[in-house]
Amino acid sequence: MGVNMSNKGLLIVLSGPSGVGKGTVKTEMVRQQAFPFEYSVSMTTRKPRQGEVDGKDYFFVDEERFKNAVANKELLEYNQYVGNYYGTPLAPVKEMLNMGKDVLLEIDVNGAKQVRSLMPDGVFIFLTPPDLHELKHRIVNRGTDSDKAIDLRMQQARQEILMMQDYDYAVVNDTVANAVDHIKAIVESEHVRIARVIDDYRNMVKED
Amino acid sequence: MGVNMSNKGLLIVLSGPSGVGKGTVKTEMVRQQAFPFEYSVSMTTRKPRQGEVDGKDYFFVDEERFKNAVANKELLEYNQYVGNYYGTPLAPVKEMLNMGKDVLLEIDVNGAKQVRSLMPDGVFIFLTPPDLHELKHRIVNRGTDSDKAIDLRMQQARQEILMMQDYDYAVVNDTVANAVDHIKAIVESEHVRIARVIDDYRNMVKED
Repeated sequence: MGVNMSNKGLLIVLSGPSGVGKGTVKTEMVRQQAFPFEYSVSMTTRKPRQGEVDGKDYFFVDEERFKNAVANKELLEYNQYVGNYYGTPLAPVKEMLNMGKDVLLEIDVNGAKQVRSLMPDGVFIFLTPPDLHELKHRIVNRGTDSDKAIDLRMQQARQEILMMQDYDYAVVNDTVANAVDHIKAIVESEHVRIARVIDDYRNMVKED
Repeated sequence: MGVNMSNKGLLIVLSGPSGVGKGTVKTEMVRQQAFPFEYSVSMTTRKPRQGEVDGKDYFFVDEERFKNAVANKELLEYNQYVGNYYGTPLAPVKEMLNMGKDVLLEIDVNGAKQVRSLMPDGVFIFLTPPDLHELKHRIVNRGTDSDKAIDLRMQQARQEILMMQDYDYAVVNDTVANAVDHIKAIVESEHVRIARVIDDYRNMVKED
């Protein structure tokens, strides 16, 4: 281990309500190489689609292997969608973090909750839909939307805000470029948080 | 009050050991207009120098007025240097924050401690000297510096690290440009911290 400040990478968890555009934001971060980060390859019981490569797009496994992985605590988080399991293998994430690499996980809110319990030091970013900001305004100006539609959105919004409170940051996905810029700033600042760097400083001046 | 996320400004406290270059970093932030922020005009008992304007460079007051300000808790922090008092008037800082403006204070470590006790929600940034990173390396390669010089620097470094632990971020002042970039990222990310924005979100969807 060197004495530099990047001994350990950051685990960056990008999550938010379904439909908010997590995937698009992640794709743009990869395209821009917004900052040097790794991302994990998920394990799934879903059948490979045309062109998908095992170990690159997913680790394709059968249900027995997946359930074993869960039982053996090999997964950082997992979920089931429409009959298939999806999960994040823990070992490669840990390995990348220990090598000083930041790791980005783009996962749903249930997954994020599981990650928080196993890796509370992660940086948890909640992507919020842009209309969450405008709800009150829309309420005040009723007539443009039906009362019922607004009430439904309000109910959903309350749910979203309940989820949000377990995160560290709320980033509005008004444009993908803005969201990516905010995430970059968050990562840069988290790298110099006292709690993350003070031990390195202490080690530097340790009497030995 | 609108429903936007910037109801209240951030108090950004830039501090660090003497000689680290706080003033230079602040001046560069003002020059670049790194982000929209205000800075406070200090009150002092020092005599105005040629060209200094009362109310712009400082509020120039006599010692009686200064001591009254202290007694009346009109100051966010104050200190004495070479026989003169210097302090930060509280009212204008509060006013700017309430108007949604970020306020930058560039003050010494004693001042920062006072501010922390009055405004714990501030963002406290500790500027570190670049050689703090290299100390261990220099120890390992003794010969380039005298043992005594290194021991002194180590002692001082331990002091600096003790101070650092009461701050939120440690920014290395290796180059002024790098330090300013980090401070910009910190401010941007602090604006979207859950603890700072969740009440606004809650208010947006409040049943009323």
